[in-house]
Amino acid sequence: MTNEGLTTYVQTIIDAIAAQGVKQIVISPGSRSTPVALLLMHNAGHDQFSLYVDVDERSAGFFALGMTKTTHEPTLLICTSGTAAANYYPAVIEAQLTHQPLIVLTTDRPAELTNIGAPQAIDQDQLYGNHVKTFVQLPLPAADDTTLRYVSFNVQRTIMAAQATARGPVHLNLPLRKPLMPDLAPVNEPHPKTLTAPVTQAVLTAAALSQLTARLSGKRVLILAGPAESKDELAGVLALAHKGRWPILADPLSQLRQTDDDLLITGSDILFDGAITLGDAQPDVVLRFGATPVSATVIQWLQTFTGQVILVDPNQALADHSLSTQIQLTVTPAILCQALLPQVLPAPARYCQIWQALEAAYRQSVRAIQATEARIPVIMSNKLQDSAIFVSNSMPIRDVDHFYLPNNGHNRIYCNRGANGIDGVVSSALGMAAVSGTPNNYLLIGDLAFFHDMNGLMMAKRHALKVTIIVVNNNGGGIFSFLPQAAAKDYFEPLFGTPQDLDVATVSKLYGAQYERATTAEDLQSYLNETPTGLRIIEVPSDREENTQQHRQLSDALHKVMEDVLENYNTNKSN
Amino acid sequence: MTNEGLTTYVQTIIDAIAAQGVKQIVISPGSRSTPVALLLMHNAGHDQFSLYVDVDERSAGFFALGMTKTTHEPTLLICTSGTAAANYYPAVIEAQLTHQPLIVLTTDRPAELTNIGAPQAIDQDQLYGNHVKTFVQLPLPAADDTTLRYVSFNVQRTIMAAQATARGPVHLNLPLRKPLMPDLAPVNEPHPKTLTAPVTQAVLTAAALSQLTARLSGKRVLILAGPAESKDELAGVLALAHKGRWPILADPLSQLRQTDDDLLITGSDILFDGAITLGDAQPDVVLRFGATPVSATVIQWLQTFTGQVILVDPNQALADHSLSTQIQLTVTPAILCQALLPQVLPAPARYCQIWQALEAAYRQSVRAIQATEARIPVIMSNKLQDSAIFVSNSMPIRDVDHFYLPNNGHNRIYCNRGANGIDGVVSSALGMAAVSGTPNNYLLIGDLAFFHDMNGLMMAKRHALKVTIIVVNNNGGGIFSFLPQAAAKDYFEPLFGTPQDLDVATVSKLYGAQYERATTAEDLQSYLNETPTGLRIIEVPSDREENTQQHRQLSDALHKVMEDVLENYNTNKSN
Repeated sequence: MTNEGLTTYVQTIIDAIAAQGVKQIVISPGSRSTPVALLLMHNAGHDQFSLYVDVDERSAGFFALGMTKTTHEPTLLICTSGTAAANYYPAVIEAQLTHQPLIVLTTDRPAELTNIGAPQAIDQDQLYGNHVKTFVQLPLPAADDTTLRYVSFNVQRTIMAAQATARGPVHLNLPLRKPLMPDLAPVNEPHPKTLTAPVTQAVLTAAALSQLTARLSGKRVLILAGPAESKDELAGVLALAHKGRWPILADPLSQLRQTDDDLLITGSDILFDGAITLGDAQPDVVLRFGATPVSATVIQWLQTFTGQVILVDPNQALADHSLSTQIQLTVTPAILCQALLPQVLPAPARYCQIWQALEAAYRQSVRAIQATEARIPVIMSNKLQDSAIFVSNSMPIRDVDHFYLPNNGHNRIYCNRGANGIDGVVSSALGMAAVSGTPNNYLLIGDLAFFHDMNGLMMAKRHALKVTIIVVNNNGGGIFSFLPQAAAKDYFEPLFGTPQDLDVATVSKLYGAQYERATTAEDLQSYLNETPTGLRIIEVPSDREENTQQHRQLSDALHKVMEDVLENYNTNKSN
Repeated sequence: MTNEGLTTYVQTIIDAIAAQGVKQIVISPGSRSTPVALLLMHNAGHDQFSLYVDVDERSAGFFALGMTKTTHEPTLLICTSGTAAANYYPAVIEAQLTHQPLIVLTTDRPAELTNIGAPQAIDQDQLYGNHVKTFVQLPLPAADDTTLRYVSFNVQRTIMAAQATARGPVHLNLPLRKPLMPDLAPVNEPHPKTLTAPVTQAVLTAAALSQLTARLSGKRVLILAGPAESKDELAGVLALAHKGRWPILADPLSQLRQTDDDLLITGSDILFDGAITLGDAQPDVVLRFGATPVSATVIQWLQTFTGQVILVDPNQALADHSLSTQIQLTVTPAILCQALLPQVLPAPARYCQIWQALEAAYRQSVRAIQATEARIPVIMSNKLQDSAIFVSNSMPIRDVDHFYLPNNGHNRIYCNRGANGIDGVVSSALGMAAVSGTPNNYLLIGDLAFFHDMNGLMMAKRHALKVTIIVVNNNGGGIFSFLPQAAAKDYFEPLFGTPQDLDVATVSKLYGAQYERATTAEDLQSYLNETPTGLRIIEVPSDREENTQQHRQLSDALHKVMEDVLENYNTNKSN
């Protein structure tokens, strides 16, 4: 038995979704979502959409997030009624904090079957609270012209809202009555009235630009480049920095380390922890781009910085927990840099020279690192090219911040730096791999985060994704060894270390992955010479205690190197 | 560096938790929750609490839910800030719908680090929306008397609210500033002012009882016993039924199938699907106890039932999506049954005799079942004794409803019948096993639900739980083969069948489980002779198409059996 009104109505929604440029769709199977799933696949046969099917909705949410991060386009999630939808919550929150246009379409039982004891029904109204930009309760299916026009308009408008500045996730809730079988007749050409909003952009007034120029021109400016969506987003920053001879603290997620530029600074955690006096390297002004940087040290330094801090903040969020911003520039980096480029004069030569000397010495030391975990990003930055790299939260992203060196490999680096969770990392990386356009996909992850989203591996198997996962296995939560609770010895292992004794080889077997074990730098280098042809898991065994010691020694050694450079400059003032 | 004000404050919260009788605690590791975790473990050393540590918060939520279902006591969940807390959402919603007093204590960053770009911070205010009974934002730690008294009172009051009718989950959000290390000095005897609320109970007035007696006494009453918390909850129902000679449609979760009583009816899905005319078995009145029954057929029949429906509804929720209730009795089953017992006269003898004849014939046929999946509950009801059995949603609970026969084995049966999700089932079962007080713990689950919460198995390994898991592996979503979408052949397997090709033997190896494969009834019988000594996984291979056919044939055969009994009674009116 099919249901013609249902078919027209659901097809209208699908046409509206297509009209707004949604191409990637992740479906989690269920009964209530039947007409949407069937009609989507029916449409997909006509090349409208790429469909992915993920049984675990938590993983599905992060898989979609990974796709959106990579394509910068909205991705649609679809699930059935009930707790299925609640499993999306972590990914929805991460999407909100990182401004990703995730479109969540939950199907629901009709009013007469919710909140009244019926099964598979939860209250889906405002399910994600204020963690979405918009919640829309769609009407029950009907094929009258008023309903169809309203639904087409409202679905399009909601997807547009997700993509408007500041971008973010949206939630559409669709109640459906039985019978749920649509008519799978040939699909007509979609002909909704499409909605578009031609791009607008904010620009600085001439007066504002002139004031700003005065603040920056010829000054010791330090550019702080935080996480960015793509290389394009901060593209103008490099040119501006060269004009002003301004060093750039390049966050690993700024996408600026895709170029081996001599103004990029990566040793910031060593330089800004208060142990070192910057001397003539001390900036007058900090010009911030992008989201919150990975480095907590830089944020702490900003809190003590007495010069002016200017935040380029097109989202108008003032999301600055260093509380140091004084000037908010609500324009995009591209517009700002283009406007400033002809205006600014360079900083004193010596300022830039010191920074470059510091960075050169830092990189030289980093290239020589032998410590098991710390050398992994060094090897990756040395070996990988034209790759999409996903990095887990906790220790991996910190190690990448410190030790992944800028190079001309054009490697994009992604991480879930909204809530910084260790949940959903595998799925996010696989979502990236599904749409990155390259077989060179990599994930760097610790054993706990790997375990947390192990279910996510199923998508690699089911969709034949090409990705190499480097699992740093120190059997537990490595980051806690750096925190004060490490002193509470009797309680540490059960509460924080939490060794799971995960057998990574057996996990690899379970998901049909090629398994490798890299105990030496040479092992890892040789494995990274191969382009991924499917799912490959490289286990790097490590030891938490040894790693803590190695990191501390490394930090001491790098401090010494930096201090030597600064001392050299301070004793040779004429340099 | 320790923090004495912090220690006093957090210890006050812990004392308040202990004062309200919370014994089971599930911690997920993280940094922000450090003082709570450390002090809890410090207290646990003094036998205050049983602590469980689960890395995956989604699993942790369901593990706690399983414990609460089994102990009928509140269970505490603790996690760090960020998306960790969002992972609890599915379990929180299930707890709400099944009235389980889950106490969620999320730790949080202080105000100056939320909603302002700081990492590991999400907006945790009202995180679970209206899916908890109460949300409490606790103040920042302080050791002044006013704060300590307020926090002690408010934490106790919140835990009491979770346990007051209608019970449900509550959320405490605790912001903490660094430094996070508490003082781990000897624990003092807790001495909060404890809060208690002596139990009250609603009773029927004499007039209401007399009216109700008139409606029931001597009438053809059909008792519908839905899911109940424990055997005690519906204990009075059996005695009342015997007095009135009233058959009881005993839901598998009513806990009534723990007794081989000759008034229990299990063949209701066959009798109520409209294909059979009940004749003299037709009741005048339906008296409902417990939550929504597993059987959708019974609900559909209630919608067409023209007699009176009385709902015993101590939660005062009127959660009746059959919309058939006319009389709501806001008393507990025990009070109602005790009050009615001396009053009611039996129904006509013939009414009860027909029902007993129908059930005897039904059970005889069920005992002879050979179909691969359908025979599993038959074997379980035959073999298991003094066991705690968790049943997954989707096909397993339906099969248990149909084919798990009442017996004197004293087996408790649990299932997540709030939102009926297939998420968190493994963890719920392991939570049950952790506190059931018996090594005889069982889980019956399909391969998709098993996969969905595979991470949950880690708790069996880490806490050496004794449980046997029967995985019915038909490689995909078996239930969809019974739905109309099975006709959409081209789309069915990718969207609904969704075979995951899960290698259950390798999963068993990963978690150190003993693995068995049961291809015959004898295999399964012999495996069920052994008491679980650890984690054991029994895979029962099945085939979805064959299973659909077998269920249809079985249904036809059972209809025939029921019709024959009724025909016999109708042609022998003098019986």
